[in-house]
Amino acid sequence: MIRILVTNDDGIHARGIHALVKELSSIAEIYMVAPDRERSGTGHSITVFEPIKVTPVTFQAVKKAWIIGGTPVDCVKLAISKLVDVKLDLVVSGINHGPNLGTDVLYSGTVSAAAEGVIMGIPSVAVSLDSFDADMDFRLAARTTRKVVELILEKGINSQTLLNINIPALPKDEIKGIRITKLGVRNYDNLFDERQDPRGNTYYWLGGGVINEEQEKDSDVIAVQEAFISITPINLDLTDYRLIKEYEDNFKSYLDFTTGVKNDFS
Amino acid sequence: MIRILVTNDDGIHARGIHALVKELSSIAEIYMVAPDRERSGTGHSITVFEPIKVTPVTFQAVKKAWIIGGTPVDCVKLAISKLVDVKLDLVVSGINHGPNLGTDVLYSGTVSAAAEGVIMGIPSVAVSLDSFDADMDFRLAARTTRKVVELILEKGINSQTLLNINIPALPKDEIKGIRITKLGVRNYDNLFDERQDPRGNTYYWLGGGVINEEQEKDSDVIAVQEAFISITPINLDLTDYRLIKEYEDNFKSYLDFTTGVKNDFS
Repeated sequence: MIRILVTNDDGIHARGIHALVKELSSIAEIYMVAPDRERSGTGHSITVFEPIKVTPVTFQAVKKAWIIGGTPVDCVKLAISKLVDVKLDLVVSGINHGPNLGTDVLYSGTVSAAAEGVIMGIPSVAVSLDSFDADMDFRLAARTTRKVVELILEKGINSQTLLNINIPALPKDEIKGIRITKLGVRNYDNLFDERQDPRGNTYYWLGGGVINEEQEKDSDVIAVQEAFISITPINLDLTDYRLIKEYEDNFKSYLDFTTGVKNDFS
Repeated sequence: MIRILVTNDDGIHARGIHALVKELSSIAEIYMVAPDRERSGTGHSITVFEPIKVTPVTFQAVKKAWIIGGTPVDCVKLAISKLVDVKLDLVVSGINHGPNLGTDVLYSGTVSAAAEGVIMGIPSVAVSLDSFDADMDFRLAARTTRKVVELILEKGINSQTLLNINIPALPKDEIKGIRITKLGVRNYDNLFDERQDPRGNTYYWLGGGVINEEQEKDSDVIAVQEAFISITPINLDLTDYRLIKEYEDNFKSYLDFTTGVKNDFS
């Protein structure tokens, strides 16, 4: 029996997670944990200064489910360390309403929830649908996700692997296949709206639109634009190994004060 | 004239940021932007669903300063895109109260604020002091930071570079030098306290202690343990390039439906 933990950052009431659960329950036992409200843009945020409320709930085709008064990362951390009492085979986070491409994965609660799965020792995938349309049909995206999850489980996935999947919002016949991609670039202009409150104080509200930067052809951004399902393997060791040598050369006279070189750190 | 944006995640009233500003103002024009309260553990979170309040304030030795009703990443995004009207040479985030080592950089508001600097096109450094002692003297850490910042500026730093610096909480004479490091591993046990509210409902509070995993000798964790200043270059392209080929092989029959291979994504 395959056991999958399903989570998201759009909250327990989002259509994407319920379409996902319904579809994945045909191939696995489903555990579900989701924030009590939309928590988009929370990145890898954890709740440190407040207690976290946990409410067990019941959904059709779900073995156990909980609503969490915290972030997507809180959800996964709590589920794996406290709530779920069986060994999980996979964490699936999504289906997100809207894409999570390129640089934006750093801000994404969906991708961060999957990252937390890997940190806690469970292979994980994040799934996003490239549409913000409120009426979007998630069933096709859910079936596509199930198929990709079956492929991943069939081929084997190790506990250090995080896959970020983006699905074009297109009818099945128009999806051209899968591309294994690198993260592209996503920049925004007109980032903040500047407004006045009723007392004349200035405040700001995050807005902005994507600037269509030049993208490399093998990026996730281009794959989805060209009607491919994009799968990007994500690495959580942020060390920039290429720069280690450069900085060792730059700082070599400071590398070990005990060797007698100058120590003027005062 | 060197211009530095100083920020943190411990909030505008934290002693670490004021010690840093005081020291860096001897070598640069200082712009300052900080959250209105402690925002530790917020990772790369941004404020999407609420407006962000911005309050200009005045501090000695600071050219311009603002208190921000948002996350550390909001602070840097707002400062660079809206508030600061000159070209900045560097973003310095800190001095954090407590270390930011290994896996923990994903959760760190301090490191994420510096990461946002790089995303916005400014080279950035995050600085943390390896002590949670409320009485800790930040002046030595601030002088050490100034020295490292001078070294970085002297050697040149490009706009894509993010450096994560951790300083041992030791007297100057006991600091052995600098090591250029990779991120180590930080895992925690007893992650959540389980408690009952006055009505008998269960809630959870994040706690836990670091498990001393085996560390690689060239890691940041070991460097600080062995009394070295740790400098880790951080890479924001999370693509796991080593896995791209493996997944291309795994999924090769699905890579392009248009070539006539099976398309059963339904």
